[in-house]
Amino acid sequence: MKNDGITIAVLTVGDELINGEMADTNTAAIARALGARGYFLRESLTVGDAETDIAEALRNLSERRDVVIVTGGLGPTTDDLTARAAALAFGRPLVRNEEALALIRDHFRSRGRQMSAGDEKQALLPGEATILSNPVGTAPGFLLNHGGRDLFFLPGVPLEMAAMLEASVLPLLLSRGGGVAGGERVLKIFGISEPKVEEILTPSLPEGVRLAFGVDFPLVHAKLRASGEGAGTLLDKAELEAKKVLGDAVVACGKETLAENVVRLFIAAGRTLSLAESCTGGLIAKLLTDVPGSSVFFERGAVTYANSAKRDWLGVSDSILQEKGAVSEECALAMAGGMRDAAGTDLALAVTGIAGPGGGTEEKPVGTVYLALAAPEGTVARRFQFSGTRERVRLIAAHAGLDWLRRHLATGGNQKGQD
Amino acid sequence: MKNDGITIAVLTVGDELINGEMADTNTAAIARALGARGYFLRESLTVGDAETDIAEALRNLSERRDVVIVTGGLGPTTDDLTARAAALAFGRPLVRNEEALALIRDHFRSRGRQMSAGDEKQALLPGEATILSNPVGTAPGFLLNHGGRDLFFLPGVPLEMAAMLEASVLPLLLSRGGGVAGGERVLKIFGISEPKVEEILTPSLPEGVRLAFGVDFPLVHAKLRASGEGAGTLLDKAELEAKKVLGDAVVACGKETLAENVVRLFIAAGRTLSLAESCTGGLIAKLLTDVPGSSVFFERGAVTYANSAKRDWLGVSDSILQEKGAVSEECALAMAGGMRDAAGTDLALAVTGIAGPGGGTEEKPVGTVYLALAAPEGTVARRFQFSGTRERVRLIAAHAGLDWLRRHLATGGNQKGQD
Repeated sequence: MKNDGITIAVLTVGDELINGEMADTNTAAIARALGARGYFLRESLTVGDAETDIAEALRNLSERRDVVIVTGGLGPTTDDLTARAAALAFGRPLVRNEEALALIRDHFRSRGRQMSAGDEKQALLPGEATILSNPVGTAPGFLLNHGGRDLFFLPGVPLEMAAMLEASVLPLLLSRGGGVAGGERVLKIFGISEPKVEEILTPSLPEGVRLAFGVDFPLVHAKLRASGEGAGTLLDKAELEAKKVLGDAVVACGKETLAENVVRLFIAAGRTLSLAESCTGGLIAKLLTDVPGSSVFFERGAVTYANSAKRDWLGVSDSILQEKGAVSEECALAMAGGMRDAAGTDLALAVTGIAGPGGGTEEKPVGTVYLALAAPEGTVARRFQFSGTRERVRLIAAHAGLDWLRRHLATGGNQKGQD
Repeated sequence: MKNDGITIAVLTVGDELINGEMADTNTAAIARALGARGYFLRESLTVGDAETDIAEALRNLSERRDVVIVTGGLGPTTDDLTARAAALAFGRPLVRNEEALALIRDHFRSRGRQMSAGDEKQALLPGEATILSNPVGTAPGFLLNHGGRDLFFLPGVPLEMAAMLEASVLPLLLSRGGGVAGGERVLKIFGISEPKVEEILTPSLPEGVRLAFGVDFPLVHAKLRASGEGAGTLLDKAELEAKKVLGDAVVACGKETLAENVVRLFIAAGRTLSLAESCTGGLIAKLLTDVPGSSVFFERGAVTYANSAKRDWLGVSDSILQEKGAVSEECALAMAGGMRDAAGTDLALAVTGIAGPGGGTEEKPVGTVYLALAAPEGTVARRFQFSGTRERVRLIAAHAGLDWLRRHLATGGNQKGQD
């Protein structure tokens, strides 16, 4: 962990972050981006739009840390005070930076917009600032070196912050570290708890690869991290090993989501899909149609809350609904089969269950969910017992459905029994 | 703003918060809870599970702020170091607190579980700690008074933290403030931008009421805040005035969401609903069925991506699909009318549009969305032009649909024309 030597702090600035208007997402985004390269944050501080508070925080952090990444307070309005506070903190004059002014002018000119006095104010920076261009917004960032410490100043708008972090801060950090880069591989896992994933993965990790976790319920994100020369090769090896020991539980990798993976597999296989959802109420359709291009394979979905809908659209018989109930293996099978017939798609997925909080019985408690998949090879149903709030049961059920589609497509639809 | 005199800081502790594994949500939750009572955070600091870092932060914050709320690092594992760090910071012995131990024992006994050595460690606290009971988990919190400053120590698990903040911290803060409480009213607004809401609301606010904002895209949350005696009456008045000037744009109040409001209105009116969604792909159905009890009025929904689905289920004619296209006023009207006939519901809402990123034309660019509402009084369609990413267009379109249902029900379905 060669980068452990550099201590890095984040300072986020903005009244909205401490008065309950908005949650600070920049710290977590910076921590993730640094972590992915083998760097780690030492601390993070948030203060409001008060010049003396910002200046005090800057002095304090720059005395104790090698690198300080500051976000917020660079904009055109009167409560944007970070540049003034930095000048105050380090005893520098506040001067009009011609390079910054030219960048701001270019930004407005290229968009055919008029500059205001406030916009010009964004070029008033502490002396000896190195300009960091802002590819997304108007306020340029800047870098101050004070007492051997690097202080990066970025806008607070998350999109602008993230773009400048990638374009300016990380490359500079890497170059100062003598080119000692780090890397990260993310495996998204469904159906195995975090402690269990740790137990399975730890023995398989090559030396020099660390394991970290992230949560995106109901998925567990396992992050393989390495730094130093050869990190890429080491991580390739670690990822291969991890996929081997985790097997089918890895539902997506890197930035791809499970839904994106399913969409990609459908398009590649040239197959079509329809959905019959009861307890998930459109959530599976929503997750798939979040992905651009899903219309290529997704023909239609039915949210069949009332029994009449199951009867009219899916042909579920009254005898099933009355004798077995809407939450039953028989109903799930009939929904999937009926949906496939109605839509004429290659596959049809059906889900029916009890999301709660009400509606549970001793035999079928809240969290009981039946999924069924109708395919050319036949129709299969599975019973699941999930637990948690209504929101969680619906999320797990939807992911279980997407994961079933993924497994089916990944094996070419040749699975038997458990599918 | 009587509470401005007390300076409050938050310290959140945990490696997971600075290594990119997890975003800190406690700071924002505390800031919101404080803000709702007329208190404001002055700063927030995050450090990892390092004893000296925690101790340094505690000393530093307690020198500068009246109240410090600390979360995290109270659990049973070896990296839970906050109590030790507090003892170190304030030169107090670390002693076994019998009251804390009894609470922990009770917790385990009442659940029939066995205590481990680590669990007992949670009772090792700095001397002269006042115990704060934890109604949700095992780790008790505690309060230290050091140099006239109050330091509250709470667990890092958001659910436990929030419960103890409400049960212990806020009442103590209020009582120390001499019973000077504050309050907050939240109005959720759709279709008006934040600057415009501010412009409309500001002249209507009674003296002593402050305005703050929160974002829950595509809604704007306007927060009316007051503190001191009589805050409740003042806020009642302010809320009434605000609703008067904002009129129909207020789609929900307080903790209620727009979807919950719509569900409540449907159940109260005894009416039923069906949905025909194209570009929103199940999102409206998902939002409504997120709410427990939605099955009472929501009969069914169709996600009709393919034209065949619009034809089979909704009876949209080939001539409309071929001559006007699937994204047209005629198609939206036919979808809503056909859906209402198919489902036999009182109301049917249809949405068809171009969510992007592809599929736009000069005549119908990305963001073109038609909504239609079929009711006993007739069927009405409206064209909207939204902008933004696919995700944003879908969210705005879904909210526009829910809002139309809300307005329709709120006026008893007697609107004409624009409905």
